Amino acid sequence: MTDDAVPFDDRGFAYGDGLFETVLVRDGQPLLWDAHLRRLARGAERLEIPLPDTQTLASLPGQAGAGLCVLKLLVTRGSGGRGYASPESPVPRLRWRFMPFMPQSTYWRDGVRVRLCRLRLGHQPLLAGIKHLNRLENVMARREWRDPDVAEGVLCDQHDRLVEATSMNLVWRRHGILETPDLAACGVEGTLLAALRERLSIHTRGVGIEALMEADAAWVINSVQGVWPLKQLDDADGTCLNRWPVHTAHRYLQQHAHPLLGYPHDVFDEA
Amino acid sequence: MTDDAVPFDDRGFAYGDGLFETVLVRDGQPLLWDAHLRRLARGAERLEIPLPDTQTLASLPGQAGAGLCVLKLLVTRGSGGRGYASPESPVPRLRWRFMPFMPQSTYWRDGVRVRLCRLRLGHQPLLAGIKHLNRLENVMARREWRDPDVAEGVLCDQHDRLVEATSMNLVWRRHGILETPDLAACGVEGTLLAALRERLSIHTRGVGIEALMEADAAWVINSVQGVWPLKQLDDADGTCLNRWPVHTAHRYLQQHAHPLLGYPHDVFDEA
Repeated sequence: MTDDAVPFDDRGFAYGDGLFETVLVRDGQPLLWDAHLRRLARGAERLEIPLPDTQTLASLPGQAGAGLCVLKLLVTRGSGGRGYASPESPVPRLRWRFMPFMPQSTYWRDGVRVRLCRLRLGHQPLLAGIKHLNRLENVMARREWRDPDVAEGVLCDQHDRLVEATSMNLVWRRHGILETPDLAACGVEGTLLAALRERLSIHTRGVGIEALMEADAAWVINSVQGVWPLKQLDDADGTCLNRWPVHTAHRYLQQHAHPLLGYPHDVFDEA
Repeated sequence: MTDDAVPFDDRGFAYGDGLFETVLVRDGQPLLWDAHLRRLARGAERLEIPLPDTQTLASLPGQAGAGLCVLKLLVTRGSGGRGYASPESPVPRLRWRFMPFMPQSTYWRDGVRVRLCRLRLGHQPLLAGIKHLNRLENVMARREWRDPDVAEGVLCDQHDRLVEATSMNLVWRRHGILETPDLAACGVEGTLLAALRERLSIHTRGVGIEALMEADAAWVINSVQGVWPLKQLDDADGTCLNRWPVHTAHRYLQQHAHPLLGYPHDVFDEA
């Protein structure tokens, strides 16, 4: 009933004038749900889009069947207005869908190869951090490779400072300290990152790729896939820039993150 | 038949992964049609989206009834792919609608008041110039005022260089030379601007608002509204920065632009 089509004049379709969330749901129970709702509310406040009522949002995850799936929900500013000019009294439009999901569990154990993207993210503090529907930069960055052995792309901004991966956040440990890029000018603040920051001391850094070269462990993380250790970083030509052995040092972040998602964190072979 | 709804999984809706054009159509005849098709092709090449076949596109304007209207057409990368990752063989989705239209003809004669926006456009050369569906910056800039006496907002980039208006291009004359902002890092290259550049010498400038203070005439232009002379520029607080008498100097650009749109250019009272 609300997983139906979107009218031509929806402002999400016309301009990307809206927000979305992708939520891991197990047996009808959403994971990190409060963090998703908080980010959605922050985005709605930033874009000045009214949210659907709390009860409607709260009722969504329970409509999932048994097992693991991802709830994707979108809230747009609805229809109306004149061109870019917003309607005086916008009526938000909510659309959602459940998608079957299986996490890439071998990546938890073995780690992933990632690649530095050529695309540099533009600065727009007004839109930074929130999960809005203007995602062409992510789409275009993800088009830079087709090699299935490359799991993610690392994105820098136009001053060559690290920001994120195309659909995940980036965390590394350097000199014994957990660090993550500054997201004040671009990038999305993931809900798993937000949850970890409430539990661990993770320092915000405005640094370039050299920080990853100095890191003794690094990860890409999000709220549906969990925590992937980095085992190799390539440049945009596919040349290896750094390799990490995936060892016990990498399990630390998984031990804190995976219980939040109901994922295992102690079944890896450390031999 | 294609002015119908858009499926939930359309990538235009999900990510703004697509392009659009708004075309003035008079009695089934599109104005500046070649310029619109060229920009659409340039955008499709940049985003690597296949275009619908030429015949289908060419048949659209003729479906309009008598009188003046605007054809809005959108081309998205279609459905499919995994998250940001594009489908291997995308099937583009075309949607369009005709909207009744009346140009703001009093603005041609009297000129308009415009306002400098607070929002600064982010730099993204990969997306600059083309008319893609990631338009939150324009939407948010247009939200900065509600005063119906303010017709447009002037946008600068993050180095305070002039770029465009929220839905129009910007042209001014300074020391007898026609100038327009550089659009290599942000902004949309309008089809009327492109058509005028084929006919007139209009110089590209990387300059700030001071260029408008020195201009003896300035305009905002697009392919549906035509050419509006600026009569007043306010800052973001509504304080007047400059005023221009709207006189014969302003008619020059209208005399070149309005015949391209079938609009009058010689009916203004110059008394």
